[in-house]
Amino acid sequence: MPSIKAAIIGFGTVGKGVYKIVDEKREQIKKQTGYTVDIVAVLVRDITKTRNIFPGTVLTDNIDDILNNPEITVIFEAIVDEEPAYTYLSQAIEKGIHIITANKKMFAKHGPALLKHAEFRNIQVGYEATTAGGVPIIRTIGNLLSGDRVKRIQGILNGTSNFILTDMRTEGVPFKTALEDAQKLGFAEADPTDDVSGTDAFCKLMILSSLAFGSQPEWEKVSVVGIDHIQTDDVVEASNAGYRYRHVADIRQNDDGSLTAKVGPVLLEANHPLYSIDGVDNAVIVETEYLGALTLIGPGAGMYPTGSAMVADLLHIIRQQVTELIPN
Amino acid sequence: MPSIKAAIIGFGTVGKGVYKIVDEKREQIKKQTGYTVDIVAVLVRDITKTRNIFPGTVLTDNIDDILNNPEITVIFEAIVDEEPAYTYLSQAIEKGIHIITANKKMFAKHGPALLKHAEFRNIQVGYEATTAGGVPIIRTIGNLLSGDRVKRIQGILNGTSNFILTDMRTEGVPFKTALEDAQKLGFAEADPTDDVSGTDAFCKLMILSSLAFGSQPEWEKVSVVGIDHIQTDDVVEASNAGYRYRHVADIRQNDDGSLTAKVGPVLLEANHPLYSIDGVDNAVIVETEYLGALTLIGPGAGMYPTGSAMVADLLHIIRQQVTELIPN
Repeated sequence: MPSIKAAIIGFGTVGKGVYKIVDEKREQIKKQTGYTVDIVAVLVRDITKTRNIFPGTVLTDNIDDILNNPEITVIFEAIVDEEPAYTYLSQAIEKGIHIITANKKMFAKHGPALLKHAEFRNIQVGYEATTAGGVPIIRTIGNLLSGDRVKRIQGILNGTSNFILTDMRTEGVPFKTALEDAQKLGFAEADPTDDVSGTDAFCKLMILSSLAFGSQPEWEKVSVVGIDHIQTDDVVEASNAGYRYRHVADIRQNDDGSLTAKVGPVLLEANHPLYSIDGVDNAVIVETEYLGALTLIGPGAGMYPTGSAMVADLLHIIRQQVTELIPN
Repeated sequence: MPSIKAAIIGFGTVGKGVYKIVDEKREQIKKQTGYTVDIVAVLVRDITKTRNIFPGTVLTDNIDDILNNPEITVIFEAIVDEEPAYTYLSQAIEKGIHIITANKKMFAKHGPALLKHAEFRNIQVGYEATTAGGVPIIRTIGNLLSGDRVKRIQGILNGTSNFILTDMRTEGVPFKTALEDAQKLGFAEADPTDDVSGTDAFCKLMILSSLAFGSQPEWEKVSVVGIDHIQTDDVVEASNAGYRYRHVADIRQNDDGSLTAKVGPVLLEANHPLYSIDGVDNAVIVETEYLGALTLIGPGAGMYPTGSAMVADLLHIIRQQVTELIPN
């Protein structure tokens, strides 16, 4: 049975999720593609820490152990920061390794360059997991672009913010308590700055912009406001009046082709499609020329949704490019 | 510029929509695929009726004019009934013609056989437009099956029924008046029996069942109830008590692999994801092992949503199989 050898870069929640799903889905992947997938290496920062991995997987803190292993043809990248992720993935493309990333901060900025580089080298790039967790918005917009045109995208793209706003409304707790609740439940990072400041939602919106419109607005011209200054009194009062605060990322293409985007809390009426999206769910409304509005709602984060989006990217790559995944 | 020659079978709302979109999107399709698409023939019942078509399109009432034209490599089928659609498409597959259908009644029953036949002949079958109009549920479930497993599908699959229930609730009108409203607005067929009896939603559910579970439950064991016996008093009373009637198609896979399905009106609480879906929208909730629940909402019917789903199927086929679309 031919085997595809892959590596994981970054072994936090998402990296571990990919590792687990590839293991659990071994038989199903084999049946669907005719290949087995083996994670032969994992890049970690601290190699001395005990990890729950199989004997066949090599732990390393040196990226060259992965990039210079000619067996490895796919890399799952699940680091949080821009660097060293971008450098590693650029090197991977140079080496002919297909890449699958969940790194929104890196991809918002460097995605367009990586995609061009990858196209030139005939390398596949999967980035479904960068945006809206388990909601397959990247593939859906990609498909919509066949024979249709996107006019506007609006969405709740940060599950942590949405959880906090929901918690403030339903429990009447202050922002700080709601954030602590989110952290206790594993919905927020130890450092939640990017989530609550709107930066995370902004990055995802830029990724969607590149995909849907072929370009991004100038970053400094986009107003980005977080939820960290919202008062519980305001949230509860709005709720009693029939409105809800939602943190919405919004981009539209104007008639002259230019793009207008903004990210921040907005008050929504009960008949707005994003009014009822509670908790850590994400939701994206795509308005197109022919279809009208299409709404996708699903889990915005979590080990399994994000991990399975990355594994789905892998299966897509296998189907597209199977001959090049097995080195001679 | 190489050109792909296609035919349309059935020139009602959907057939006309495909014709219009292929014309309007000529340049975009060319840019995206490198091919132009020309509708060279349209099969109609009454050839004497005046039609709004271009000089390059031949009108015919004889299917053999299409099947025996070696230039034609794709057929869009937009007939309503099972026959002659199934016979025509079987013959098309035999002739090596790729097929794209919007015919749910035919595809619920004969889809599995057509797909096997097509696979054997290496022919592509597009059927996104059979189910939930412009909501890309076929492709989304197809993608989810990479590395995940569907456990349950629940949906509002008939836009006409949903429009009527919405109208009864918000306007307080009886069923008959709501149906007339739907017909006036172009949301219901002249013969709305399949819509209001639940048959249409049942057919769509069976198509989803084949895709998601690889099989269908025995048809006679599925309870199928329409909305034609619902009283406005009940709808309004439920609404005042905080509930809504929705016509829901529901199928789940049991632990032993068997399938349980039912189609009919149900009372939903305000926190149910289908509670807020009003008017002619369709909505589908797909529950999977890894992802949790994914919800898709969009226009359930109409010339443009359905037509653009069929054109998107064509572009997908072009990408998959481009070499075989141009005869030698």
